[in-house]
Parts: sequence; structure tokens; C-alpha cells
Amino acid sequence: MITKKIKDVLEITRKKRPLVHCITNYVTVNDVANILLACGASPIMADDKKEAADITKICQATEINIGTLNSRTIESMLIAGQEANRLGHPVILDPVGAGASELRRETVNVLLETVKFTVIRGNISEIKTIAQGKKSGKGVDADIVDGITTENIEKVVSFVRKLAKETDAVIVVTGAIDLISSSDITYVCKNGHELMSSITGTGCMLSAVIAAFCAANPKYLLEATAAAVSAVGLCGELAWKKTFEAGEGTGSFRYRFMDAVSLLSVKTFTEGCRLEKYE
Amino acid sequence: MITKKIKDVLEITRKKRPLVHCITNYVTVNDVANILLACGASPIMADDKKEAADITKICQATEINIGTLNSRTIESMLIAGQEANRLGHPVILDPVGAGASELRRETVNVLLETVKFTVIRGNISEIKTIAQGKKSGKGVDADIVDGITTENIEKVVSFVRKLAKETDAVIVVTGAIDLISSSDITYVCKNGHELMSSITGTGCMLSAVIAAFCAANPKYLLEATAAAVSAVGLCGELAWKKTFEAGEGTGSFRYRFMDAVSLLSVKTFTEGCRLEKYE
Amino acid sequence: MITKKIKDVLEITRKKRPLVHCITNYVTVNDVANILLACGASPIMADDKKEAADITKICQATEINIGTLNSRTIESMLIAGQEANRLGHPVILDPVGAGASELRRETVNVLLETVKFTVIRGNISEIKTIAQGKKSGKGVDADIVDGITTENIEKVVSFVRKLAKETDAVIVVTGAIDLISSSDITYVCKNGHELMSSITGTGCMLSAVIAAFCAANPKYLLEATAAAVSAVGLCGELAWKKTFEAGEGTGSFRYRFMDAVSLLSVKTFTEGCRLEKYE
Repeated sequence: MITKKIKDVLEITRKKRPLVHCITNYVTVNDVANILLACGASPIMADDKKEAADITKICQATEINIGTLNSRTIESMLIAGQEANRLGHPVILDPVGAGASELRRETVNVLLETVKFTVIRGNISEIKTIAQGKKSGKGVDADIVDGITTENIEKVVSFVRKLAKETDAVIVVTGAIDLISSSDITYVCKNGHELMSSITGTGCMLSAVIAAFCAANPKYLLEATAAAVSAVGLCGELAWKKTFEAGEGTGSFRYRFMDAVSLLSVKTFTEGCRLEKYE
Repeated sequence: MITKKIKDVLEITRKKRPLVHCITNYVTVNDVANILLACGASPIMADDKKEAADITKICQATEINIGTLNSRTIESMLIAGQEANRLGHPVILDPVGAGASELRRETVNVLLETVKFTVIRGNISEIKTIAQGKKSGKGVDADIVDGITTENIEKVVSFVRKLAKETDAVIVVTGAIDLISSSDITYVCKNGHELMSSITGTGCMLSAVIAAFCAANPKYLLEATAAAVSAVGLCGELAWKKTFEAGEGTGSFRYRFMDAVSLLSVKTFTEGCRLEKYE
Repeated sequence: MITKKIKDVLEITRKKRPLVHCITNYVTVNDVANILLACGASPIMADDKKEAADITKICQATEINIGTLNSRTIESMLIAGQEANRLGHPVILDPVGAGASELRRETVNVLLETVKFTVIRGNISEIKTIAQGKKSGKGVDADIVDGITTENIEKVVSFVRKLAKETDAVIVVTGAIDLISSSDITYVCKNGHELMSSITGTGCMLSAVIAAFCAANPKYLLEATAAAVSAVGLCGELAWKKTFEAGEGTGSFRYRFMDAVSLLSVKTFTEGCRLEKYE
């Protein structure tokens, strides 16, 4: 199922060419810049506190990824996030490894207290860590931590809707099945391929595409986010197919994935999109 | 038109294998290191003030790129640039996004005041920002900002020559048409392909190749710079051709571009070079 | 010659999927993360002192690479290394450009004084720099600096065994011929291809694979290290062959090398392994 709104997101992004300010980790930053270009946007990376607000001002969205955070860049994340809020720009949070250290837990808490995020995207473990600092995290069943299955999907949907309500953000949980949810509407996405977790950065790249799509489609944030999740997953499928047919490995998969994003047409997207409203 | 001096630049670089010290942004740093190897040079990246001068000493050129600058690395840029000046090494400035923030404008001004650059390479907007801190920037026509066309080329040439005179540097303006200019001689380069702006880092990579070519050809800085602009542009054309024929996207283009640089022969360069003296 | 222990290293790593904490340079960090995934491990990069110990705790090995060190990350290297020692995890040192600056020499000395390394991997020049701070470095013949040849191999073996004894680490010297040595057993590895030095990061990537293999095979550290050197070298050969046949350059070689690592089977490894015990 693909609605007109979802279908139009990609073309509108390519037409508007939004500039996206990324404060992101240095592991995958090159891929993040290239995928922004591939999906029709432009990247600018700037993580010094003296220019964070200036750069935010000339962009249409801000993406904050805590992957290789440090005391210097955390300060810049706060400045950029608050400035984006002041300007009414979409702000996307990618809480990479949120539960891996006290520093990341604290940083995520401070970010959530001082910046209003438009979209928060992580795997189930990262999203649970975020919820734990909130009411919605209390009493979350342990089985949710193992990812989304047809058995536990009802529970997970209920959990992400609560978190969406509390944070007033679209919540995205990625895994074998992805959920994209506001407080009352949830999309289930079945695009994607497991090979995507065999290269670094597919999560970071998705968060950047979400930022680009939201920047260009600010009135349809839920649909823009769902479109990003589906489109990126579909490109993973297309890249896997070519890689598999050629008998190649993860090096090939990585460039073919970027190829797929840069070549993605509305027609291919429409045919391959596997989004459904959860009801 | 290719002169013997320009033609020889590549081979001489491959023979001398110069070591180039880069203080550059973390978005495209891997591509910068790989293109230096591909064109016959060797990279070393070192941005701590405690070692900036030491590393500059063992190199034959220094490249400064302000892409993801911060207060710590700005200090190292100044140290490395001044040490390179002391040693008489070529120093290349890539003023990425020079006009995007007050921090970048200030940094560019301080760099220009305290370091004598051999080559300054940017797009027209970045070069204009540099000129604005100088006399040559006064009264620049607004239409120049939109790039170089056959209509405004005379004005742009006059502008870059003035800037070249004021800074005593070779000025490179890249775009659909590229200019490489000293205060009295200007080359026009028509190599390149628009797909080069669909991946991140082609500008950064070009600046690094200029540094390598100047390091190996210190007596012919203008020719070395022109050769770099033409050779890199030509590799973009060659990579585009293969990418287009294979029906592939920007991921393929990126590796094919690196392939082309590493495989570029003097014969291919001579045949494909589209440099002309502006008269 | 491949022993059962060496042959099993790869499969055991893929089964255990160790998590490796890397404090590494920002030039090749993406390749390091991708090769860890390709060989069956998982990467986590964290270089802030506030989280260095926390991240070390959740990993099974720690890799320290001084490539783009700075005062902030040096502190984190020390914390991570000491925490890994406390936990009994393998700790790998990659002393990139150890002799290039006073800062690097000092840092290597401080690291060696305060952290017990499991494996130290570098080229002959880097390993000599390390030895110079130690007794084993005194009186090292000058000819060793030019790499390992059939003429000087006896001297080099004697040198690395002394250093292995002094540091209680496995010493790896990579070059046209590689040595992997404890204080009394030395493997000579003839895998590899010279094209590997035409891209940046093959050394950094090897150090990361050593960390992964040691993490998964903690009882056979010498064999795990030898397996890593041979496997990575073999993948260089396989990638070169495909690149050469296709008439391609270093861009292709880079992705094909990653392909080879991700596709490496025990059978291919067994057939291609060119390790021998030095006697």
C-alpha cells in the first residue's frame, strides 16, 4: 500500500533539494553525506559550538547522531537542536548505542529534555533505553528487546505510541520489521534485507534520509518518515539482489546500495513499497 | 591544448611520490587519502597542535581544508601553514563553505593574514567570500555568484586575477567551467562532469591532488595546478561514461572515479585535457 | 601449511561475533568498521574519556590505533587499554607513523608503559621505533629498516623475538613478507599483494581483524594473529586478481578487498594460506 502523500515524498525532496545539518559520528559520516546527495538533498556537517547555530540557520533540517559523541560535540548538538526548534525545522535524533554507556544515556536524556525532536529513530534496544528515562519505559515486557515479531507486535505498537505521545515525536523502530509511529497512527514496513546489517551505517544513513524527507515535506512528517524507511529498505533489497546475482560480498553491496538510492524512481518505489497501516 | 610542462606533471608526481600533510574535514578524509595514493603521492593526516609542525617537516606540501573545523584544529592549521611557509613548501587552502558561518569567515581571514598560500581553490561563492575580506572583493558584480558563463567570464577572470595578485596565490574557481589563474595568466578548463557534484568530496579531492602536483613540481605551480584541475575533471568524465553505460548510480561513480585517477596515463591525459589559456 | 588451530580461527570468530572497541583514526575508521563486520565481528568506536571504560566493558577486545591521535583521544586510549587489561581482554596496538613526530613517540612510550598489549602490529619502521624506547632496539642493524628480505630475515626474526619477550606481546611486522612472532615461535607469511599499499587503511584493517580473531580465540593468540595476517593478505590477492582481470583501478580494488573478506570460506583460506613456521 502506498498513498499519494507517501509516493510524492521522494520527488518533492528532489525538487526542493533541502540542505541538512548533520552532527554525526565520524565512522559513517561519508556515507551519510553521500546518501543525502543520492536522495536529492545536500549535506553540511559542522560540529563546533561556535558555528552550530549559524549552520542550522542556513539548513532546512538538523540531524543529531550520538555515535562518536564527545563533550565538545554534545554541546554543539544542544545548540543546533535548540536553534532548529526556534526556527521550526525538523530535528531528527539517532541515539546510536544509547544504552552502551552512562555518557550516552545521560546525553540522550539531556537532549530529550532540552530539544523537541521531530523523529527519533533507533533499533528496539536504543528506543527502549530512551523510554526508560520516561514513563513509557516502565513495565515494558522483556521480550520486546528481541525485536518485533508477529507475536509481540501489538505490545510494541502500544509501547511506541506511548513514547510518541510523551515525546511528541514520530518514533521509528528498525529491525527485521520496522515501525513508524505517531501517538495514534502506526505504519509497519517490511522492506529491507538482512545484509543491510553487514555494513556499517545503514541506520545512520536512514536517519539522514528521514531528515531530508521531513525537511522537504514538513506538513507530512509521519508520511515522509515512513517513505524514508520504506525507500531505504527497498534500496537494500535491490542492492542485495544485484550483489547476490553477481556472487559478490559486502563491499559491492555497499556501493550498490548507494546506486539504488541515487537511481530510485517513483515507479520502482511505488511497486516495491511494503508499508502498511497497523490496525 | 596541453603544454609539455602540464603533460609532465603527472609522471613527475608519480616518480617523486611526495608526502602531503592534510588537515582536512572528517567527511571526505578517506577519499582524500585514497586519491593522493591514486595520483602517486602519499597522505598523512595529523591535526593535533603538538605534532602539526613535526608532520609538516617530513612532508613536501600542506593542504588545509576547513570543512569540519573546530577551535582545536584551527590552531593546528595555523601552525602547519606557518611551518610550511618557513620551509618553502606549497600550501593549499580549500575554504569549504567559507561563507556559511562567522567562524569560517573569521578562520579564513586569520589564515590568509598569517599564512601565505600557494593555491586557493573553491567554488565561486567560496572565492568571493575570500575576496570580500580584501580589496578585490569590493564591487564584484552579483552575477558572478551564479558561476562562470561565456557571458561573464571576462569579469570573473579580471576578478580572480586581482585576487591572485593580492594574495600572491594561484586562484582556482571550480564549477561547470573552471578557472586557474595567477595575476596575469589564466587557464580555462572545460573538463569535468556534473555527476561529480552528486558525490561528496570531489572538491576536497581536487585540492589534495593540487597539493601533490605542486609538491612534485614546485617550479611550475600554475601548470601543476592546471594539470590537477584538468586531470581530476577528466577522470570524472571517464568515470561518468562507464557509470552511464552500465546504468549505475553514484556509488559506482565514486569508485570508478578513483579507478580513473589510479589508471590515468599520460596518453589519456594528453588526449582528454581541455585546458586553454584565456586571452 | 595451515594447522587446525589456524584454520578454525575464522569460523570460531564468525560463530562468536565478538564486539571490538576501536579507538582509531578518522581516516580509515569506516573501513575498519566494515572489515570487522565482514570478518564476523562487530565494531564500536568510542573515544571520549567519559565512556571509554564503559564501552571497553561491553566488548571482548580493544584496538588502539594512533593514526590521528590528539590529547583528548590519547587519554581515552590509556583508559580503554587499562580497563581491557583489568578485564583480561586482548588489546591490540597499531602504532601508525610512530616515528613521524615527537607526540607519537611519546604516546607510544606511555602506552607501552601503562598498558600490556596482546599484539603490536606495524611496518618495520614503526616496530623499530617501538623497540628504540626499549633494550631490543639498541644496535638494530640499519638494513632492517628497508623491510624483510631472505637475506636479513634471520636478524629480523631475532629482533622481533627480543621485542616480543620484552613487551610480552605478539609482534607483527607487515611488509612484502610478514612476520608474526612470540618470544620463541615465529610465523612467516607470504600472503598479500603490493596493490594493498595503493589504498589507505589495509594496515588499520588488519589490526582490527587481529583484534576480532584474538577476541574470539583468546587461548590461541599467536595462531589467531597469524590467521588474521594470512587471511587479510589472501583477500588482497583475491581482490587484486579480480581487479586486474577487469582492468580496473584502486577504487575497485578497495571494494573487492572487502568483498573477499566477507566471502572468505574456510576452504579458500585453507588453500590460499601461505604461513610457515620459521625454523
